[in-house]
Amino acid sequence: MGFKRKLRETTARNNSLLCVGLDPDRAKMPAGVGIAQFNRAIVDATSDLVCAYKPNLAFYEAEGLEGLRALEETIAHIPPDIPIIGDAKRGDIGNTARMYARALFDVFGFDAVTLNPYLGLDSVEPFIAYTKKGLFLLCRTSNPGARDFQDLEVDGQPFYERVAFKAVDWNVHGNIGLVVGATYVQELARIRQLCPDMPLLIPGVGSQGGDLPQVVKRGTDKSGANAIINTSRAVLYASTGPDFAEAARTAATDLRDSINQHRRPVRRNV
Amino acid sequence: MGFKRKLRETTARNNSLLCVGLDPDRAKMPAGVGIAQFNRAIVDATSDLVCAYKPNLAFYEAEGLEGLRALEETIAHIPPDIPIIGDAKRGDIGNTARMYARALFDVFGFDAVTLNPYLGLDSVEPFIAYTKKGLFLLCRTSNPGARDFQDLEVDGQPFYERVAFKAVDWNVHGNIGLVVGATYVQELARIRQLCPDMPLLIPGVGSQGGDLPQVVKRGTDKSGANAIINTSRAVLYASTGPDFAEAARTAATDLRDSINQHRRPVRRNV
Repeated sequence: MGFKRKLRETTARNNSLLCVGLDPDRAKMPAGVGIAQFNRAIVDATSDLVCAYKPNLAFYEAEGLEGLRALEETIAHIPPDIPIIGDAKRGDIGNTARMYARALFDVFGFDAVTLNPYLGLDSVEPFIAYTKKGLFLLCRTSNPGARDFQDLEVDGQPFYERVAFKAVDWNVHGNIGLVVGATYVQELARIRQLCPDMPLLIPGVGSQGGDLPQVVKRGTDKSGANAIINTSRAVLYASTGPDFAEAARTAATDLRDSINQHRRPVRRNV
Repeated sequence: MGFKRKLRETTARNNSLLCVGLDPDRAKMPAGVGIAQFNRAIVDATSDLVCAYKPNLAFYEAEGLEGLRALEETIAHIPPDIPIIGDAKRGDIGNTARMYARALFDVFGFDAVTLNPYLGLDSVEPFIAYTKKGLFLLCRTSNPGARDFQDLEVDGQPFYERVAFKAVDWNVHGNIGLVVGATYVQELARIRQLCPDMPLLIPGVGSQGGDLPQVVKRGTDKSGANAIINTSRAVLYASTGPDFAEAARTAATDLRDSINQHRRPVRRNV
């Protein structure tokens, strides 16, 4: 099943726009619990509450080959009808981008990935060519440094809007989305205006402090959907004790329900 | 030994600005030769001819965990006095960037890495903090898509110059360099002018067709050094038969010597 349909169906089935970022950090995990074991427990506790999972590859690569094996085990454990977004933020020239696309889609088997657009079209094309997969281009990120380059003005427009326009241009197969941080609500509103139908992946609620009601209002489309609102730490480390999975379930339930409170009423018909 | 000193000493010892990109592509490698075996043969055939090696992680990730194991073996095989640049083009928010820095510097043990600057300072800081390591920010890349975003004008200047200025600002520990494609000589000349003392990593000679005399003239600093001129395919696949290592040596020798012909005469004193 393609990414878009998987996302739509899971969103409807779980009545959720919540994505849980699977970013295992040993410094915050309960002692004596391995990465794959930790992720399995988190997935088992939240799989009826999410629209997607999003492992960030950095957390696995930091543990070497063992970490990447745990990522493979995690992917295998996630129910196959829930979409998995590989948060890889890759970006390389055409020849090399093909290798990254193979690694992320064929080897790991992600349903969608995040990409850095700085190298332009030929760095994105090999991913677009996987028409059943999804790709999210970094547009306006959630971190303080986002201002350094993404806000520079080009002909009176911020640079990140140029990324949004290009994404629309390049979206010939309808499989492109954008990453827009929850911590900058005005920018989020503007991007939603420019791309009314595009899926937006929105990290930065929870620990990073994005304003949830505003994020839901500005980030969703006319139907109250098409936004993937990600949180990682606020769910994963809701408790660092042996009750971590239960605490994650409680945190995820609260967050899903808070998101739904602020969605447009049409969601009830989804 | 820190990256800068390793680079300076290897450049002098081998009288070379040539970097060989270790990008093993099964479609082009001799049949029946494994990745680690292929790389070992290439390294053995060229280690007295290069200033550095640069494995691009995409080619290993495309082969899954086996590929990454081959990367580890390759790194272990390269003589420890030759700097290894991990061409990873990573870029993520501060919290996650720390994990990538750990993966690339502590786990893989690269002496330097390439980074995508689009997420701004907090995505680069965890790498800068490894003061003995090197980091090369993507500035003006060698691919056709480079024009899509990198050339957009910001206050009358191309965007990539903003990246160069920020790199200078951020270079408090003297461990930042820039990636500038060989295929755009004017841009290369301009960046060298803006950053007279910064090491430039210059891919795109060989298969990508950069003009070698111009690249050497425009890319080196006043002393005729501080440029790392990378080629991958033109050396790795000089022959795809059983004589591939010998052919790689011949190609690397020719390229090193051609580069040296166009270096400023002061190189003889290095």
